[in-house]
Amino acid sequence: MNAPMKQADERLMADTIRVLAMDAVQAANSGHPGAPMGLADVATVLFNRFIKIAPEDDKWPDRDRFVMSAGHGSMLIYAINHLLGYDDMAVDQLRNFRQLGSRTAGHPEYGHAKGIETTTGPLGQGITNAVGMALAERMMNARFGDELVDHYTYVIAGDGCLMEGVSHEAIDFAGNMGLGRLIVLWDDNHITIDGATDISTSTDQIKRFEASGWHVQAVDGHNNEAIAAAIEAARQVTDKPSMIACRTVIGKGAPNKAGSHKVHGSPLGEDEVAAARKALGWTLPPFEVPTEVRAAWRRIATRGAEARAEWLARKAENPKGGEFDAVNAKPATQALRSAMAEHKAKLGSEKPKVATRVASQMALEVVNGVLPNSVGGSADLTGSNNTMTSAMRPITRSDYSGDYIHWGVREHGMAAGMNGMALHGGFFVYGGTFLVFADYMRGAMRLSALMGVPVAYVLTHDSIGLGEDGPTHQPVETLASLRAMPNMTVIRPADAIETAEAWEIAVTSEATPTVLALSRQGLPTLREGTEGENLTARGAYVLREADGPRDATLIASGSEVAIAMEAADMLAKQGIRAAVVSAPSFELFEAQGEDYWESVLGDAPRIGIEAAVKQGWDLFLRRKDRFIGMTGFGASAPAADLYRHFGITPEAVANAAREII
Amino acid sequence: MNAPMKQADERLMADTIRVLAMDAVQAANSGHPGAPMGLADVATVLFNRFIKIAPEDDKWPDRDRFVMSAGHGSMLIYAINHLLGYDDMAVDQLRNFRQLGSRTAGHPEYGHAKGIETTTGPLGQGITNAVGMALAERMMNARFGDELVDHYTYVIAGDGCLMEGVSHEAIDFAGNMGLGRLIVLWDDNHITIDGATDISTSTDQIKRFEASGWHVQAVDGHNNEAIAAAIEAARQVTDKPSMIACRTVIGKGAPNKAGSHKVHGSPLGEDEVAAARKALGWTLPPFEVPTEVRAAWRRIATRGAEARAEWLARKAENPKGGEFDAVNAKPATQALRSAMAEHKAKLGSEKPKVATRVASQMALEVVNGVLPNSVGGSADLTGSNNTMTSAMRPITRSDYSGDYIHWGVREHGMAAGMNGMALHGGFFVYGGTFLVFADYMRGAMRLSALMGVPVAYVLTHDSIGLGEDGPTHQPVETLASLRAMPNMTVIRPADAIETAEAWEIAVTSEATPTVLALSRQGLPTLREGTEGENLTARGAYVLREADGPRDATLIASGSEVAIAMEAADMLAKQGIRAAVVSAPSFELFEAQGEDYWESVLGDAPRIGIEAAVKQGWDLFLRRKDRFIGMTGFGASAPAADLYRHFGITPEAVANAAREII
Repeated sequence: MNAPMKQADERLMADTIRVLAMDAVQAANSGHPGAPMGLADVATVLFNRFIKIAPEDDKWPDRDRFVMSAGHGSMLIYAINHLLGYDDMAVDQLRNFRQLGSRTAGHPEYGHAKGIETTTGPLGQGITNAVGMALAERMMNARFGDELVDHYTYVIAGDGCLMEGVSHEAIDFAGNMGLGRLIVLWDDNHITIDGATDISTSTDQIKRFEASGWHVQAVDGHNNEAIAAAIEAARQVTDKPSMIACRTVIGKGAPNKAGSHKVHGSPLGEDEVAAARKALGWTLPPFEVPTEVRAAWRRIATRGAEARAEWLARKAENPKGGEFDAVNAKPATQALRSAMAEHKAKLGSEKPKVATRVASQMALEVVNGVLPNSVGGSADLTGSNNTMTSAMRPITRSDYSGDYIHWGVREHGMAAGMNGMALHGGFFVYGGTFLVFADYMRGAMRLSALMGVPVAYVLTHDSIGLGEDGPTHQPVETLASLRAMPNMTVIRPADAIETAEAWEIAVTSEATPTVLALSRQGLPTLREGTEGENLTARGAYVLREADGPRDATLIASGSEVAIAMEAADMLAKQGIRAAVVSAPSFELFEAQGEDYWESVLGDAPRIGIEAAVKQGWDLFLRRKDRFIGMTGFGASAPAADLYRHFGITPEAVANAAREII
Repeated sequence: MNAPMKQADERLMADTIRVLAMDAVQAANSGHPGAPMGLADVATVLFNRFIKIAPEDDKWPDRDRFVMSAGHGSMLIYAINHLLGYDDMAVDQLRNFRQLGSRTAGHPEYGHAKGIETTTGPLGQGITNAVGMALAERMMNARFGDELVDHYTYVIAGDGCLMEGVSHEAIDFAGNMGLGRLIVLWDDNHITIDGATDISTSTDQIKRFEASGWHVQAVDGHNNEAIAAAIEAARQVTDKPSMIACRTVIGKGAPNKAGSHKVHGSPLGEDEVAAARKALGWTLPPFEVPTEVRAAWRRIATRGAEARAEWLARKAENPKGGEFDAVNAKPATQALRSAMAEHKAKLGSEKPKVATRVASQMALEVVNGVLPNSVGGSADLTGSNNTMTSAMRPITRSDYSGDYIHWGVREHGMAAGMNGMALHGGFFVYGGTFLVFADYMRGAMRLSALMGVPVAYVLTHDSIGLGEDGPTHQPVETLASLRAMPNMTVIRPADAIETAEAWEIAVTSEATPTVLALSRQGLPTLREGTEGENLTARGAYVLREADGPRDATLIASGSEVAIAMEAADMLAKQGIRAAVVSAPSFELFEAQGEDYWESVLGDAPRIGIEAAVKQGWDLFLRRKDRFIGMTGFGASAPAADLYRHFGITPEAVANAAREII
């Protein structure tokens, strides 16, 4: 806390945020003025007295992270980043709030502008991302020490964030992990879209956070000294995350509408904007900033620049400086590729019959052996997801040097936490649960895809092949639902070799998250010859060509490829020449283009086989082709019984082939 | 609490559960013995001293509801229901635990056997269903009084249920609603799959529930008198839900494995089963029940049968008895159909240009005017989802006679709560949020579909047409992801008339939930002639035939139908004859069969238009047909700008048509 401005100046700094926010929302005739106006004082104190950032290097690894979890209050960030002098946030961006091509989207979008640490808007995501960031900070600190890693994660969360279930997962996990560098400022404004908060909640948030082991305080969110004292106290508590309830008036500054839900999600209107100007004593036209206010905000940037310069000097002298840079860069893929080639060769000679979840663990031994910064985890299914490799050690509140996270029974929290860790930087992150429970974390998976965060989801028990747990646990539509998502690579490998290739794709992906859909049941190694290219990266390829011109092409993914192979054998005995195409990834196949598609799929009648619904299979199948799969939910029984019951067998495939050729 | 057995007898009753559970899991060589064995005492006390059910009438409306939220402990329910004498739970069902065709699925499946109030297994769902049930009980009580409605909802929840985020939504909501008839028994066994709970949670659950306004107690879960006293105390607290922390030993009865995570999800093994028999002093072979134990459990059923007989007598004399039966039956559809026909005729003559979310509100005025038991709600987007009609009154903790639920910012809790209300019976339930936030509640929506619970999801802001809120709020893959789900009818109406028809479908659906995907932006009324059949129920139909033999067929859903109509006009001016097919529901169209498909789609080149990804459109489109829609995420800008930016315009459609004809 060095060189803060006087409180009188802070009032002007905050009022500037208020005016910029209400004017930008008014210009767009769309947006949420209430939160930025209500939070202007809290944010001003936080930035003016505490935040350590360097706008000239928005990726500086030791910057504080600021997460606006209440993303609808996006104008708060935009106004602040404009005032701080980020070079991509000139005033025209504010003038074009929510317009096509501007960086100032309705909700803060990661990658659209500097200084936006994560995409928020879907409530509860930001606070959970922040838990991941704060955990990553402590883990990096355990590896590189205080000289290189010494920053805070600050969050502004609203009532909506704290009502969403994922917030519970975040709070419980963060409390258990003792994340002392995490400070949540709750915008306690008593208002939601539908009206006063008491129509839908009466939880004592202070007590709730305390129950999960947090340090808690409550302050008047418009009393700057109280806010500052609370933040300072929170920073001093190093073994618990902190929550500060900031009692604010939503839309403060708007004389008639402040404190009401009318100011939450609608422009103030010209009259109220004028009245607010008058009440604030504001005489400047829209988007003009008083010189002394701009200077005050720029001093924060200068302070950050100085801190960064000192940090760079420390790093230059630190023996771990080079290693630190390495883990913050994209992973070096050469070592991985050669280790994986060796692993594939071994698999090719040993031909193990293992579930792909087990094959995944074998591949992860390679990945985790090569990458210095791989971090695994599971939502309480470690033994089932096979996500923990032999040298991994769990991370605990007393030792952050480990590399395995017990996320607990918290799929959504895991996915959002993984996003936060990846956004923080320094780690390659993967986490597991059952495929069907992708439904529980889809909100966060969508944000992995939207932000282009290359985390890996290890989703085992990927079909009726899981057997007795029954239809609640058996995905049938989950593959299709994930394939529908833009910028998500879904890979369902058929054997240990494809699983190894899938991991190579996941680890080397730069801006696309990966789903690995893995079997519970054992599967034979099918691939012959493991040298040369990563065939899984082609999305689909001819696993076995027909012995002569094709009579039929059998196309399958994952555990059903072995069924297709058996069917091809049966057909061969009857003199029918069937090729088998393994199709581990629809997205990757689609990216190959028409010539490749035709070379793989050929002209013969086709049969698609997947223990899932047909939706999406038109990528491979034409109108008269056949599909063998699921048309409804599964059932509870041993896996082999279920495959027979639902007619997903080599016999059924062979029969269908005979019918259509 | 009448005629309880002696405690010594309760020990035998509980041990019978333990032995049946361990033997059934052992026979299946699959399943979870730990929870039923650990919970046997709690469950025995609950059933023996409190529960009011009548196995001869498993749908008796005034029965207590028992929800096994920790669904992996399914053998607890199966053993109990066998002992109570449910006529579909003979001993062969226990012998065939987890086998194909048996009622004893790996997790309890609603509809598979009597006495299973809801499907559980995906953690956190049961406790949230129970909140909906307990709310429905109070709402029915407010309508029909204590004589007809006077029952409790009991839940057994595990650590996993309480770690899942949705539990927070349930707890916060239930506390705010003061649901005094809800009693949650927490299986506090300190064990999860990955090991001791403290590796992933340290939340003080007592304090957590208390923070949300619950009545809380903690007892030794193997001390029957303590358990009974706590349940009795919980029943006496009428203005708060109750949570009783029952400290149990997981797998109690297994002398070597009890208290460890090894007993959670695996059979005990023959040796440990034998050791447990010895420790329990159990001499009978598997699946044999001591006569006196069977008699003891049957006394519970007899007590319930007597209560039911008294209730039937009360109902026969109650002036509201007939009305009570009516709301518990399937809705009488005749009045609805004729009121909706009148509404459609009015729309046909007035041709309003309104967003389909507004049209939905207009249709809901009709629905809510006709149905005596319609209940609406929204996850804090009432004004945006247009879910509240003019005569609706919010339900509050002090007045349950209303019919509108402010679910708060809790999509998942809303969906699971709606499932619970519908399962309880007495109401037609709908609830709203933005379409993109289906991702937040997909876990519960899947259970609506799997259970066949005909709730209605009002999902507005269904495309880039929502405009400025940007890509986090703009569904592009959500329609495809919901269409992939078995037994879910997704309807995306094009105008006010289709919206009315969609509501008729949703209200009259008996075993399939419905999604209504509705626009934020205004849309013209397109349908000519509103008499006769519900065309939306056909899934797709010719909205405008071409003027002569078709040169092209334009197929669109929702807001893009108006674009198709404009394109057809443009083409007509150029002498190209294009028909327009409105396709509000893929599932309903698919159900029509080939003759109808061909009559609607014709032979001419086709163009599909939907502001969403293409997945699933192969239902309408052949290989050489075209699709105009989205290929990635949206952007933040006014809606009209976005439609132009992404090329979803009449011009683009007309150009594409010219290219392919």
